[in-house]
Amino acid sequence: MPPIALIGILTVSDRASRGDYADEGGPAIRSYLAEVLASPWEPRQRLVPDDLDALATAIHDLAAAGCCLIVTTGGTGPTPRDVTPEATERACTKLLPGFGELMRKVSLAHVPTAILSRQTAGVCGRALVVNLPGRPRSIRECLDAVFPAIPYCVDLIQTGVADPPRLETNPVRLAAFRPGD
Amino acid sequence: MPPIALIGILTVSDRASRGDYADEGGPAIRSYLAEVLASPWEPRQRLVPDDLDALATAIHDLAAAGCCLIVTTGGTGPTPRDVTPEATERACTKLLPGFGELMRKVSLAHVPTAILSRQTAGVCGRALVVNLPGRPRSIRECLDAVFPAIPYCVDLIQTGVADPPRLETNPVRLAAFRPGD
Amino acid sequence: MPPIALIGILTVSDRASRGDYADEGGPAIRSYLAEVLASPWEPRQRLVPDDLDALATAIHDLAAAGCCLIVTTGGTGPTPRDVTPEATERACTKLLPGFGELMRKVSLAHVPTAILSRQTAGVCGRALVVNLPGRPRSIRECLDAVFPAIPYCVDLIQTGVADPPRLETNPVRLAAFRPGD
Repeated sequence: MPPIALIGILTVSDRASRGDYADEGGPAIRSYLAEVLASPWEPRQRLVPDDLDALATAIHDLAAAGCCLIVTTGGTGPTPRDVTPEATERACTKLLPGFGELMRKVSLAHVPTAILSRQTAGVCGRALVVNLPGRPRSIRECLDAVFPAIPYCVDLIQTGVADPPRLETNPVRLAAFRPGD
Repeated sequence: MPPIALIGILTVSDRASRGDYADEGGPAIRSYLAEVLASPWEPRQRLVPDDLDALATAIHDLAAAGCCLIVTTGGTGPTPRDVTPEATERACTKLLPGFGELMRKVSLAHVPTAILSRQTAGVCGRALVVNLPGRPRSIRECLDAVFPAIPYCVDLIQTGVADPPRLETNPVRLAAFRPGD
Repeated sequence: MPPIALIGILTVSDRASRGDYADEGGPAIRSYLAEVLASPWEPRQRLVPDDLDALATAIHDLAAAGCCLIVTTGGTGPTPRDVTPEATERACTKLLPGFGELMRKVSLAHVPTAILSRQTAGVCGRALVVNLPGRPRSIRECLDAVFPAIPYCVDLIQTGVADPPRLETNPVRLAAFRPGD
């Protein structure tokens, strides 16, 4: 039996990290994963300010702690404080531009300002890192679009690992796709 | 009342800058903006050769002169002389890949060679920089696609500025989208 | 009459280069080109392991040998061994993101895991470099999508060359697009 999958959920927000308002993105991601995943998993939740060093460190730490997937929420816009994509690029050895392209495409069906999002994805150690928007509704739209590819991507990134985690989804809710299946 | 918005219009062309032929891209952008904008604005037009240093400097200068939006035309193709995207990357602290993705997508509906365009967008100081193609018809197609997101992007980039410009469009011609509205 | 066009076909695979299994991607590209091209051409086929230095060198060598087009197959996924996009970025002076965007889009109509591909394209000297997937069926889907733009791109990259190659396609099979035509 594969080990329990650890999934990092990283909320990026100056205001939420100061306690000025409640984090909505982190809980939205957590309830989405609870709804979609059929295999055992545990969240590793973190709340950090919009700070490049703090963010890159948090991504590295979650990967080093054994997370196979790290999802971020917030900090992907064009303002000077938005540095989540920069932190992701710094922490990752490979970038996966297809995630950002597809998430912007699906968001664009709802709002013309979807093109302002700089969301990306990449690989940090043995973890897939995916940037999500801040709003719960947009988080779900983006995850519905990219999640079918995530379990297989996690498999690929674990190539050579002795006892890798394996993500399975509830097929009624969302069908994961693995080319070999 | 917000201040008059300054908009940089930067034509990039060896031949037009030598006077070998008339600049068509700059005037096409100017008449597009005149048609679409309902708030007070003033153009700052520049004509520069396809030179990386000259172009990056021109973008910086227009941003420093207070432009909230800088649109370029020309120099986005694959030939050795095409360096507008490189100059944009050099001048900007953040890139916004969603602009290029969407502009290539709408151009692709007209010509298969749309994928050859390396158009991008980014943020230089307090200015949004957007690369456009050289041909007047393609300029209009691209602006029709991305302009709905531009006023809100300009708002975001001015975060913290005391008396920021605010772009309003003529809703009959083109509806700008601001999430809070 | 234009000179015979040399086209580099670069198979990237640890296993195929060790002889562990037969290269399927290279022959699939070759038969595609034989089917689509109507002008004289000659393949320059190479088989290299998934090694960044070896790959970047192979791309440079094929460009230096006079290839106007170099297509790679394999090595574009998210695993640690996949380094074809990195080698392409290192060998090229310009990147053409529109190729990767369009190829991922057409592949996405078939498999959700298309977003895991990091395929890109760029310009190395006087050669257009295009990354393709490893599977023959995916290779054809991607080439059908981007090939209409390739002959004109090759023309543009040869700007200033005395006696440039010129790619012509069989219009019954695939119509190349040149804006001036």
